[in-house]
Amino acid sequence: VPLVEALTDAVDGDAARQVHRGATSQDILDTAAMVVARRARKAILDDLGGAAAAAAELARRHRDTPMAGRTLLQQAVPITFGLKAAGWLEGVGEARADLAAVVLPAQLGGAAGTLASLGEAGPAVLAAYAQELGLAEPPLAWHANRVAPARLASALGIASGAVAKVAQDVVLLAQTEVGEVAEAASGGSSTMPHKRNPVAAVNALASARQAPGLAATLLGAMAHEHERAAGAWQAEWPALSALLATAGSAAAWARACLEGLEVDPDRMRANLELTGGALMAERVVAVLAAERGRLEAHREVEAVLRRGGDLREIAADELLDPAGYLGSAGAFVDRALAAYEAQAH
Amino acid sequence: VPLVEALTDAVDGDAARQVHRGATSQDILDTAAMVVARRARKAILDDLGGAAAAAAELARRHRDTPMAGRTLLQQAVPITFGLKAAGWLEGVGEARADLAAVVLPAQLGGAAGTLASLGEAGPAVLAAYAQELGLAEPPLAWHANRVAPARLASALGIASGAVAKVAQDVVLLAQTEVGEVAEAASGGSSTMPHKRNPVAAVNALASARQAPGLAATLLGAMAHEHERAAGAWQAEWPALSALLATAGSAAAWARACLEGLEVDPDRMRANLELTGGALMAERVVAVLAAERGRLEAHREVEAVLRRGGDLREIAADELLDPAGYLGSAGAFVDRALAAYEAQAH
Amino acid sequence: VPLVEALTDAVDGDAARQVHRGATSQDILDTAAMVVARRARKAILDDLGGAAAAAAELARRHRDTPMAGRTLLQQAVPITFGLKAAGWLEGVGEARADLAAVVLPAQLGGAAGTLASLGEAGPAVLAAYAQELGLAEPPLAWHANRVAPARLASALGIASGAVAKVAQDVVLLAQTEVGEVAEAASGGSSTMPHKRNPVAAVNALASARQAPGLAATLLGAMAHEHERAAGAWQAEWPALSALLATAGSAAAWARACLEGLEVDPDRMRANLELTGGALMAERVVAVLAAERGRLEAHREVEAVLRRGGDLREIAADELLDPAGYLGSAGAFVDRALAAYEAQAH
Amino acid sequence: VPLVEALTDAVDGDAARQVHRGATSQDILDTAAMVVARRARKAILDDLGGAAAAAAELARRHRDTPMAGRTLLQQAVPITFGLKAAGWLEGVGEARADLAAVVLPAQLGGAAGTLASLGEAGPAVLAAYAQELGLAEPPLAWHANRVAPARLASALGIASGAVAKVAQDVVLLAQTEVGEVAEAASGGSSTMPHKRNPVAAVNALASARQAPGLAATLLGAMAHEHERAAGAWQAEWPALSALLATAGSAAAWARACLEGLEVDPDRMRANLELTGGALMAERVVAVLAAERGRLEAHREVEAVLRRGGDLREIAADELLDPAGYLGSAGAFVDRALAAYEAQAH
Repeated sequence: VPLVEALTDAVDGDAARQVHRGATSQDILDTAAMVVARRARKAILDDLGGAAAAAAELARRHRDTPMAGRTLLQQAVPITFGLKAAGWLEGVGEARADLAAVVLPAQLGGAAGTLASLGEAGPAVLAAYAQELGLAEPPLAWHANRVAPARLASALGIASGAVAKVAQDVVLLAQTEVGEVAEAASGGSSTMPHKRNPVAAVNALASARQAPGLAATLLGAMAHEHERAAGAWQAEWPALSALLATAGSAAAWARACLEGLEVDPDRMRANLELTGGALMAERVVAVLAAERGRLEAHREVEAVLRRGGDLREIAADELLDPAGYLGSAGAFVDRALAAYEAQAH
Repeated sequence: VPLVEALTDAVDGDAARQVHRGATSQDILDTAAMVVARRARKAILDDLGGAAAAAAELARRHRDTPMAGRTLLQQAVPITFGLKAAGWLEGVGEARADLAAVVLPAQLGGAAGTLASLGEAGPAVLAAYAQELGLAEPPLAWHANRVAPARLASALGIASGAVAKVAQDVVLLAQTEVGEVAEAASGGSSTMPHKRNPVAAVNALASARQAPGLAATLLGAMAHEHERAAGAWQAEWPALSALLATAGSAAAWARACLEGLEVDPDRMRANLELTGGALMAERVVAVLAAERGRLEAHREVEAVLRRGGDLREIAADELLDPAGYLGSAGAFVDRALAAYEAQAH
Repeated sequence: VPLVEALTDAVDGDAARQVHRGATSQDILDTAAMVVARRARKAILDDLGGAAAAAAELARRHRDTPMAGRTLLQQAVPITFGLKAAGWLEGVGEARADLAAVVLPAQLGGAAGTLASLGEAGPAVLAAYAQELGLAEPPLAWHANRVAPARLASALGIASGAVAKVAQDVVLLAQTEVGEVAEAASGGSSTMPHKRNPVAAVNALASARQAPGLAATLLGAMAHEHERAAGAWQAEWPALSALLATAGSAAAWARACLEGLEVDPDRMRANLELTGGALMAERVVAVLAAERGRLEAHREVEAVLRRGGDLREIAADELLDPAGYLGSAGAFVDRALAAYEAQAH
Repeated sequence: VPLVEALTDAVDGDAARQVHRGATSQDILDTAAMVVARRARKAILDDLGGAAAAAAELARRHRDTPMAGRTLLQQAVPITFGLKAAGWLEGVGEARADLAAVVLPAQLGGAAGTLASLGEAGPAVLAAYAQELGLAEPPLAWHANRVAPARLASALGIASGAVAKVAQDVVLLAQTEVGEVAEAASGGSSTMPHKRNPVAAVNALASARQAPGLAATLLGAMAHEHERAAGAWQAEWPALSALLATAGSAAAWARACLEGLEVDPDRMRANLELTGGALMAERVVAVLAAERGRLEAHREVEAVLRRGGDLREIAADELLDPAGYLGSAGAFVDRALAAYEAQAH
C-alpha cells in the first residue's frame, strides 16, 4: 500500500486513478519475479554457453588424445579426453537448451483471478500488459497454478547438475596422484604453498549442491490453497532467488574452470600404463573369445590378472596398445560437435 | 554375469557369441529403466488425461456457478467454480504435456562409452538398437551425463505438484464448515460413521508429498564420476522407481477424486453470504473511488468493516450481488477450455 | 592470507608470530560458524520459548473450552482448545529442548587434522582454544566428520516443523468459514479491506517451508572427501546461514502469532453444533454397543447419518452434549503443563 | 474395519468388546511404526557398531602408519591412516549414539486425542498400553505433533551421512592411481575382469544418497492439520519405511567394507613421495619462519615449488621426512579410542 501511494503521487491525475488498477500484490510480485528471472537467466545462459564452447574446443582439440576411462573410479578401458569433453558438452548443452525454453509468463488476475475490477476488459488488459513487459501471455492467471515457477526451478536444478558433473571430473583428474588436468588459476593455500587447488571446480560443486534442496522446496510448494496460498506462495521467494543465484554461480565457475583448463596428455598416457596391460583386458577377452568362447576367455584373463600376472603372457603387444582400442570414440566426438554446431547456428 | 550365461545358453551357437556383445551392465540397466519408464509414463499420462478431462467437464458445467474466491484462506472476492476448475485443468494439462515430451533415450556405450569391442560399428549398432527398442538414439552414451533421468524426475515432480494443487483444494472445500464439494466415494471411519473423508484427495496429497525429495535425490545424483559413478548411478534406481510409482499413484487418485466430485452450488452461494457483503468490498471501493479517489474509498470501506458494519450502509444492493462481480471469469474459463480442446485434437 | 597479514600487522612482534599459527582456514571458518550458530540459536531459543509460553497460557486458559476435533479436516469428536494448545506446547517444547542440546564444538586441526606445526602441543592448544571461545572441545578435528553441523541442521529443521504445525492450525482456524481464532495484528489487503489475514502464521509457514530442503542439503553434504572436501564443505556455508535465518524467522513469527492470538469460544461452540449431533456419533456407538455389540451399533448409527437423519432419533439429548464427551482432555492438558513447568524450573 | 472384525471374532465375548476400544486407526498405525522402527533400529545399531569396531581396529593397528593427508583432493601434509580411521570412528560413533537415544513413544489417543470413549481411564490405559509394548509413554497423544518421527528421520539421515563419509574415502583410496586400500571382496565386472571395484563402499554410498531426500520428506510433513493430517500423516509411511531400509543398507555395507578392508602401507609411503618434498612445505615454512618471518618464508617456499624445484634446495633432508611431521596424530587417535572404549563399557 505505501508503494501504491507513492506511485499514485508520482503520476498525473488521470493516470493516478489507473495505478495498480485491477491488480493485486501477487500480480506485481509474480510478474517481477519473472522479470528478474529473465535477467538472471540471460546471465546463466551466457555462462552455460561459454562452458559449452570451452568443452567443445577441448573435445575438438583432444579428439584423439587417449586416456584411461574409469568406472567406479577404477581404470576400465581407454577412452579419449575428447570423448569425456564431448560428454560434458552434451550435458551442459542439453541443460542450457531446457533452461532457454522455459516460458516466463506475466501475471495479472486481480484479487482472485477474475480481474473483476476491470469489468469485461480483463483479457485485453492482460494481453497488453504481457506484451508491454515482453513476457508470455498465460490463458488465465496462475496465482495458484505453479507449474511456471516449478519448470524454472527444475531447469535450474538440471543445469546445476550438468555443470557439477564437469566440476566433479575436473576435481578428480586434478588429484595429485592423477594429475591429468589443472586449472589455470589454481588456488594456493594459506599453509601449503605447493597446492594447486582446483578452486573454480570446487566452487562450482559447492554452488551446485544448493540446487536440489531449493528445487525440492519449490516443487513441494506447488499445492497452493485456493486462489492464493498461505505460506506456499511466500515460500517461493527466497527459494527462487537463492536458486537463480546458485545456479548462476555454478555456471560461472564451471565456465571459468573449463576456459582455463590445462590438459596434460603425457600424464594421461603414463596413467594408462600404470596397470601393465590390464586396461586392455576387455579387448583381450574379445579376441580370445573368438577362439574359445566368451566365458572361457573371461575366466582365463581373470586368472592371469588375479595372480598379478601380465597380459603379455597371453596376448600380443599390439593387442595391448590403448590407442588401438578406442572404438567409436572419435565418431562420437564428431556427432556431439556436429549437434553442437547445428544448434549454435 | 549369471544372466549373461543364461542368455548365452538360451540361443544358438552363432547368436550366443553376440549376447551382451559390446555392452556393459549399465547399458542394460539404463535401457531397461527407460523401457520401464515408458510403460509407467503411459499409465501416468492416461490418469493425468483423465483428471484433466474431469476438470474440463467441471469447468464447462460450472462456468457460471459463483463461489467465494479465497486468498490466504480468507474469503476475498467472488469467483466461479468453473474458474477454479479451469485453473486445475491448466496446471494438470501443462504438467502432462511436459511429461509426454520427455525424451527417453536408449543406452549403449560399452565399458566406457567407446563401444570399443564393436570396432567401427558402434554408431550403426547404437542406431539399430535404439530403433529396435523404440527409444530415442542419443548422440553418444549418457553413462555419466544424467540429464535424461533428471528431466524425467523433474517432469514427474511437476506432475505430482500439479495434482497436489487439485487435491489440496478438494480437501479444503470438503471441510465440514465449508461443504462445497464431496467425493463420491468418501471414506467412513472406524470410529466415526458420520464422516465423509475425501479419501482420494488425501491419498493424492500423500503420494505427491514423496515426489520433491525423490526428485531432489535424482538431481543431486547428477555429478557422476568419470565414465561410471561410484554410488550416484546406483542411487538412481530406487529413487526413480519410487518416483514413477508415487507420481502414478498421485495421478490415479486425483483422477478418481475429480471424476466422482460432487459439487454443491447452494452451499457455495450460502458461503458467499456469510460475510454480509464484505466479499464485495473491492467492488465498492472501486465504485466509490471513481467519486473520491482510490485511497479515500479504501479507507472508508475499511472503517465500516472494522467496526463490524454492513456495506449496505454505503453501497446499493445491486453493487453487492456476487454474480454481478465475476469480471472475466467466464472468458478465462473459455480460454482454458479452448486451449485444452486445441491440444486434444 | 590478506586477513592473516592484517592481523599480523595489528599485534606486537612476539604475538605476530603466533597469528594463525597451527591453524588452517577451515579451523577459522568452522569455529566462526559455531560462534555464529551459538548467537543465532540463542535468539531462536528465546522465540521458541516465547511461543511455548504463549501456548502454555492458551492451554491453561482454555483447558475446558470445547471445540470440534477435526481429522482429515472433517469434524470428528469434541476436544478442547486447551488440548490443541497443549499439543502445540509439547511439539515446540520438544523441538526447543533438542536445539538447546546440540553440542557446538571448536575446530582446530591445522592443515589436515594433526596440528603438526604445533609439535606435541596440539591437544593442549585445542583445549585452551575451545575454553577461550566457550565452545565444546572435540576429541579430534572434525574437518571431515560433519555430524556436528548435521545435528544442528536437523534440530533447526525439527524446530521449523514444530512451529509450522502451530501456524498451519491457526491458518485453518482463522478461515472465514471457521472463524475460531484471529491474529491480533491481522493484515489487511491492498484491494480487500475486510480481510483479516493471519499474517504471522503465513510468514511462519513460508519460513518453515525453506527448512527441509536446506537440512537435506546439509545431510547430503556429509560425505566429505579425505581431510577437506572439494565442494561439500563449502556447500555448508550458504545452507547453514539460510537455515539459521529461516528457522529463526519461523520461530519469531510463530511467537508473534501465538502471543496475540484471539480465541472465540462462542464460534467454537457454534461450529460444534453444525452437524446436528453427528459429532457425537462415536459416543452413541459406544453406548449402543454395550447393548447390542460394537459392529451392530456402528451400522445403526451409520444408517441414520447416511440418510441425513438426526442422532436424536436414537439417542438421548444428554448423550449428545459435546462438553460431556471430552474424555481425558483436561487430564492430558494438565500433564503437558506439568511437564512444561518442570522443565522451566 | 475388516481387521477389527477379524480380531473381534478371534477372541471371547468379554474380550471381544474391548478390541480396538478407545483406539483409532492412527493409534494402531503409529504404534506399529514405532515397533517396526525399534526392530529395524536394532539391526542398524548392530551394523553401525560393527563398522565402528572395525574402524577402531584400523585406528589402533595403523596408529603410526604415515600417509598423505589430502585437502580438496590435493596432497597437503602427512597424516596417519590411524587418524583417518579415528575420524571415521568418531563420526559413526556419534551418529550411532544419536540413533540409539531417539525416544520411540506409544500412540493412543482415540478419535481426536481425548480417549473420550474410555471415560476417565485414558491416562491409565495409555500407561499400561505403553508398558505392555515396551514403548515410551508420551504425556499426550502425538497424532499431530510429529517431533518423534522427525527425530527418528534425522538420526537415520545423520547415520547415513556418517557412513557415506567412510565409503567416500574408501572409494577414493581404492582408485587405480592411489591404491592404498582395497575391499576384500572387491567385485569384478562383466567385461573387465581386472577391476577390483569397491562394491561395498559403492553400495553404501548409493544407499546413503537416498536418505537426505527422505528425511526432508518427513521434516516437510510435520505441519499436520488439526487432529489428523490430510496427506502429511499418510506421507510418512513410505518415507519412513524407505529411510529405515536405506539407512540399514548403508550401515550394513559400510560394516562389510570396513571389516574386510585391506590396507597397503607401502603404497601409502610411495604416494607420500610422489611430490618430492612438497608435502612438507608447511613444515619448511614453519622452520624458515622462525628465522625470517612467516610471510617471507611462505613466499620463498612458494617460489621454489612454482618453478618445479625441489625443497631439498632450501631444507635439510630430515626436515622432509613425513614420519617426523605427524604432530599430534597419535595423541588424537588415542583420544578417539579412549572415548570409544569408555562408551562401549
